[in-house]
Amino acid sequence: MIECNGGVNMKIAFIQMKVVSDKNLNLYRAKRLLIEAAENDSDIIVLPEMFICPYNNDYFLQYGEVINGNSQTIKMLSNIAKERKVYIIGGSIPEIDNGKLYNTSVIFDEYGEIIGKHRKVHLFDINIKNKIKYFESDVLSPGDKATIVDTKFGKIGVCICYDIRFPELVKKMANEGANMIIAPSAFNMVTGPAHWEIIARSRALDNQIYFGMCSPSRNLESSYTAYGHSIIADPWGRVINELDENEGILYSEIDFSLIKKVREELPILKQKRNELY
Amino acid sequence: MIECNGGVNMKIAFIQMKVVSDKNLNLYRAKRLLIEAAENDSDIIVLPEMFICPYNNDYFLQYGEVINGNSQTIKMLSNIAKERKVYIIGGSIPEIDNGKLYNTSVIFDEYGEIIGKHRKVHLFDINIKNKIKYFESDVLSPGDKATIVDTKFGKIGVCICYDIRFPELVKKMANEGANMIIAPSAFNMVTGPAHWEIIARSRALDNQIYFGMCSPSRNLESSYTAYGHSIIADPWGRVINELDENEGILYSEIDFSLIKKVREELPILKQKRNELY
Repeated sequence: MIECNGGVNMKIAFIQMKVVSDKNLNLYRAKRLLIEAAENDSDIIVLPEMFICPYNNDYFLQYGEVINGNSQTIKMLSNIAKERKVYIIGGSIPEIDNGKLYNTSVIFDEYGEIIGKHRKVHLFDINIKNKIKYFESDVLSPGDKATIVDTKFGKIGVCICYDIRFPELVKKMANEGANMIIAPSAFNMVTGPAHWEIIARSRALDNQIYFGMCSPSRNLESSYTAYGHSIIADPWGRVINELDENEGILYSEIDFSLIKKVREELPILKQKRNELY
Repeated sequence: MIECNGGVNMKIAFIQMKVVSDKNLNLYRAKRLLIEAAENDSDIIVLPEMFICPYNNDYFLQYGEVINGNSQTIKMLSNIAKERKVYIIGGSIPEIDNGKLYNTSVIFDEYGEIIGKHRKVHLFDINIKNKIKYFESDVLSPGDKATIVDTKFGKIGVCICYDIRFPELVKKMANEGANMIIAPSAFNMVTGPAHWEIIARSRALDNQIYFGMCSPSRNLESSYTAYGHSIIADPWGRVINELDENEGILYSEIDFSLIKKVREELPILKQKRNELY
């Protein structure tokens, strides 16, 4: 779907799926929802952070995969991308590499080829008394680069959850030409209500790009309760679409010409005084 | 007012005054409201952007002042600061210097001495078809530095209106130790509803500081209609106080210990990966 005269350029789908403790059930559910999204004419389909396993340090090694053509998850995602001719931003999975674990998003083009891989750069370490304590860095290793993929819809940046709290990373991707940044994410019931929407909107506004976050649905039986509310904001900082906490697919039609329009109207990117900062 | 054990450290007042075309009336009104705020135990009092003249390129030269001890506005602000033993962040005025015009905020300590002067660094140029067109750069010259003042409450950063759209400037001030950033501002009826609150909240959240903006009240008879809604956000990104569009004084009690608490709970400033950006 490309109509580049200020209309719709692309349709993106965020799969806000329920993640449970059974890996095969998660993969089955992801596959079913990917097919549903593809059948609804999506061009790019996004899965949430850690969609194959509970978000819990104790599970990452057990559910983890070496990323190659024999990996169970990679095979499934690649096949769907190829069969359905869709791009897939494959949420994230625990990646095993040389005895280390990473929180990794694998991105596929419409031929099922891997076109990018983002290892979460900023590990989520938080300690709010009586509310939430979580140290991802206890078991995971961080990635060491920003990730931008080339698609037929232009450059798209990919980062993961806590990465979005770092405006420098987002700015770097936007400066390098990303018109849209997608973050498979899983905020919780403390940080979600407080910061989820404002981060989506402000990263979009400050960089005059589209910015989206795809979450698992809220599963109250899980040790880590995701906030849900998959969301996408436009270059004017507006929420153009958001889910509630339940399982569902968020479809958004994207008009990339809005980026040019906003950048002409409010030329903040040109007006930066980089010599002063 | 200093009680440094996690309680209130300081009381700040934002004067959201009605700005009219009569300079003397503006100065009279500012003086009356400054005295009212001082009598209500404020430690720091803030005036809005261009509080002595209409926000209009045609008026800046006529209303402008050379900033020295003989300047009408500087004398008034200095006297109030000294008599009432308050810090004053003097909104902004058109400053004339060497044949150039600047949009300048002058900051006074409680002895009436000038402790800082910020010349707006980013000039407001906007052109949204059928909505708003304004090119500050047609008549004003930009400043060339970030401004941080030392007070007995710690370092405070000062910038002006459009400056707040540049996260790099805000980050620079925060990195240099500003616990609070204050921006005399005058968003309009297009950008105000769209971006005012989100900028206050996101700058506070991303830097884990207090961030406040003081606006003129909404004057529908003016050629440029200010949004009003003077606002202050805390280091967790919450709006702690906000006015509506009418004239009034916004009083906020500030607890600087919250900065330390938030930075310990969510250590994003320590976790930046500066080598990657």
